[in-house]
Amino acid sequence: MPSTHTEFSFRTAHDCGSARVGWFTTPHGEVETPAFMPVATHGVVRGLSMEEVRAAGGQMLLANAYHLYLRPGDMMIRALGGLHAFTRWNGPMLTDSGGFQVFSLAKLRTVTEEGVTFRSHLDGSMHEYTPEHVMRIERNIGADVIMQLDELIAGQAEFADSCAAMERSLRWLDRCRVEFDRIGREGRAPTADHLGADDLAPPPQTLFPIVQGGIHAELRRASARGILERGDWAGVAIGGLSVGEAKPDLHAMLEVCDAELPRRVPRYLMGVGFPDDLIEGVRRGIDLFDCVAPTRMGRDGTVFTPDGKVQVRKSSHRTDRRPLVEGCDCACCAQYDRAYLRHLFASDEMLGLRLVALHNVAFLNGIMRDARRALVAGEFATWSADWLARYRG
Amino acid sequence: MPSTHTEFSFRTAHDCGSARVGWFTTPHGEVETPAFMPVATHGVVRGLSMEEVRAAGGQMLLANAYHLYLRPGDMMIRALGGLHAFTRWNGPMLTDSGGFQVFSLAKLRTVTEEGVTFRSHLDGSMHEYTPEHVMRIERNIGADVIMQLDELIAGQAEFADSCAAMERSLRWLDRCRVEFDRIGREGRAPTADHLGADDLAPPPQTLFPIVQGGIHAELRRASARGILERGDWAGVAIGGLSVGEAKPDLHAMLEVCDAELPRRVPRYLMGVGFPDDLIEGVRRGIDLFDCVAPTRMGRDGTVFTPDGKVQVRKSSHRTDRRPLVEGCDCACCAQYDRAYLRHLFASDEMLGLRLVALHNVAFLNGIMRDARRALVAGEFATWSADWLARYRG
Repeated sequence: MPSTHTEFSFRTAHDCGSARVGWFTTPHGEVETPAFMPVATHGVVRGLSMEEVRAAGGQMLLANAYHLYLRPGDMMIRALGGLHAFTRWNGPMLTDSGGFQVFSLAKLRTVTEEGVTFRSHLDGSMHEYTPEHVMRIERNIGADVIMQLDELIAGQAEFADSCAAMERSLRWLDRCRVEFDRIGREGRAPTADHLGADDLAPPPQTLFPIVQGGIHAELRRASARGILERGDWAGVAIGGLSVGEAKPDLHAMLEVCDAELPRRVPRYLMGVGFPDDLIEGVRRGIDLFDCVAPTRMGRDGTVFTPDGKVQVRKSSHRTDRRPLVEGCDCACCAQYDRAYLRHLFASDEMLGLRLVALHNVAFLNGIMRDARRALVAGEFATWSADWLARYRG
Repeated sequence: MPSTHTEFSFRTAHDCGSARVGWFTTPHGEVETPAFMPVATHGVVRGLSMEEVRAAGGQMLLANAYHLYLRPGDMMIRALGGLHAFTRWNGPMLTDSGGFQVFSLAKLRTVTEEGVTFRSHLDGSMHEYTPEHVMRIERNIGADVIMQLDELIAGQAEFADSCAAMERSLRWLDRCRVEFDRIGREGRAPTADHLGADDLAPPPQTLFPIVQGGIHAELRRASARGILERGDWAGVAIGGLSVGEAKPDLHAMLEVCDAELPRRVPRYLMGVGFPDDLIEGVRRGIDLFDCVAPTRMGRDGTVFTPDGKVQVRKSSHRTDRRPLVEGCDCACCAQYDRAYLRHLFASDEMLGLRLVALHNVAFLNGIMRDARRALVAGEFATWSADWLARYRG
């Protein structure tokens, strides 16, 4: 067990089926789960200040190692004191390895057993992403939780392709873990850019493995077992879902993972989701989520409400004095009405984007808070059924 | 004297030459002058929430009748409770007539003695802007201070053109005043769009005349005298400056106006300015300013500092852990450093624009606050000389 695990712990209570309340302790504080992690791809939740994210109920942020490696550079972030000091987010943080971005954004991609070579989507420069390199990057960036490099394939890939990628991801996990531990023992490489006093010792971090296997139950099981055979983890992620598969397939895979994964560690469902996806995930034992939807949709004027999505640009809102959601305690709903928000969008005023993104982030955080309350009160089954019926009704 | 003047008053103290501290009372509260008015063209200070503007020291906002007339419409704003209710800014507000926008943005403009006809820059629709129509629009929008319609010409126009426009602006002032008073007595026109209970009585407002005359001292004097002959005003604006003329010309015109205008009313210098322009204006007896510079430049990454302008995008800021301005108490400087702000701009993250705009607004408000303090302390002459020397040094 890597020594850094002592900085991370998880306890749970109030189980209702697979759902539970949890407390995930990290070097930067505790996360009450189930929790949604707002996405700060470039070290910023798009459009929002860190104070706003905190006030909107954000507990733990996700940043992206691919983007930060390319700009401003992992060495630069390290020289500036690490991701927390750089962004002024003092709470828990996680970096995704950027594997997804390498497979979706980068150009001229070549995947071998060694790793991935690709051209930057920013300037066309060539880069190599190996498990070892990714660990060095994520160790430099310095988030609390760092993700392994895994191989991504199309969401609905055939069994053979899914199997090969899943098995390679396990081999890459081994290499990630070796390099993660080596850096923990031997320290990080000295920086070459003379940015001042250098701290060779990485901060306490933990490495999360990622269950892969597409929509094939047998592969998901094999992946989970392979991960658990490799030792102890402070948390386990489930990847490669919410990439186009049908909802029943997503739910089936979550149920397979739920049965395989130990309940003593948090389970993190990557890239999910929408309001109903969060509740379906909690029901199936998921503790952590992340998704760009609240900010991306917010920029388009799409608003999460308990009755489904609402488009604030619609002309019917021209004279609508109601907040986006009655009773919502977010800074947008506390202050502004739909008529004004629609005007901001019609006038291309960025405050509109900000306010709807803020509402959407607060809304997802609010669902998770309400789910925790319902679990504590022993009312989760009813609460979640009612919530989903209203949202989908 | 229109009855609404009783809702407006101005008292001054701590004179230093032409400079003074003032308190401008409006139906929505008091403005301590000299004061910079952040510009909320579409009813929003670009990128900033009203809470942020307030926290950055904003006292009185300026919105634009041309833009709001076109979108969402003055009748719509009235139906939504007026500009204060619409925008959630509870403090004093002013609307510019939009004359400047008609002369700079609108297409196929035709100016006659009756008024201006033009095509909307948004959808090409035809509109007519007469003094009477502008009064109806500004009465519907409902700001505390509303500006007359004036005729704008090129900043460096010849004497004859400047004279003709100045004289027409006086005739339009007469028509504005007649219509302003008529609406005060008879009420506003009923709305046609059935948006609910209608309030025919306009809120208490006051009409500011605008001194014109280009860079011709004789015309400025004639304009000021023409305005004052027409009766009593709760404040007087100076327009048509900071449109390309040389700084000495600007300063000379301010000195001419300073000598002509009564000291018992606030003087508002329209469209000015930059940090040094504010101080030069205060020295010459100006009490109120507005300018889009802090937000427009902020969007480009240009930062106001006591040592002049700084471009936050510069690569020298990559590793700069300093705030934009040491000791600045704005929300940007209190929290974020230049390295992070540069990263936000490099990554096209709108939080960067927001934060620099916020800093710039706070910076101009801070200059005005410091000017007031220096006046109260009897140190304005030294303070302003030192401030300008450092800024320009």
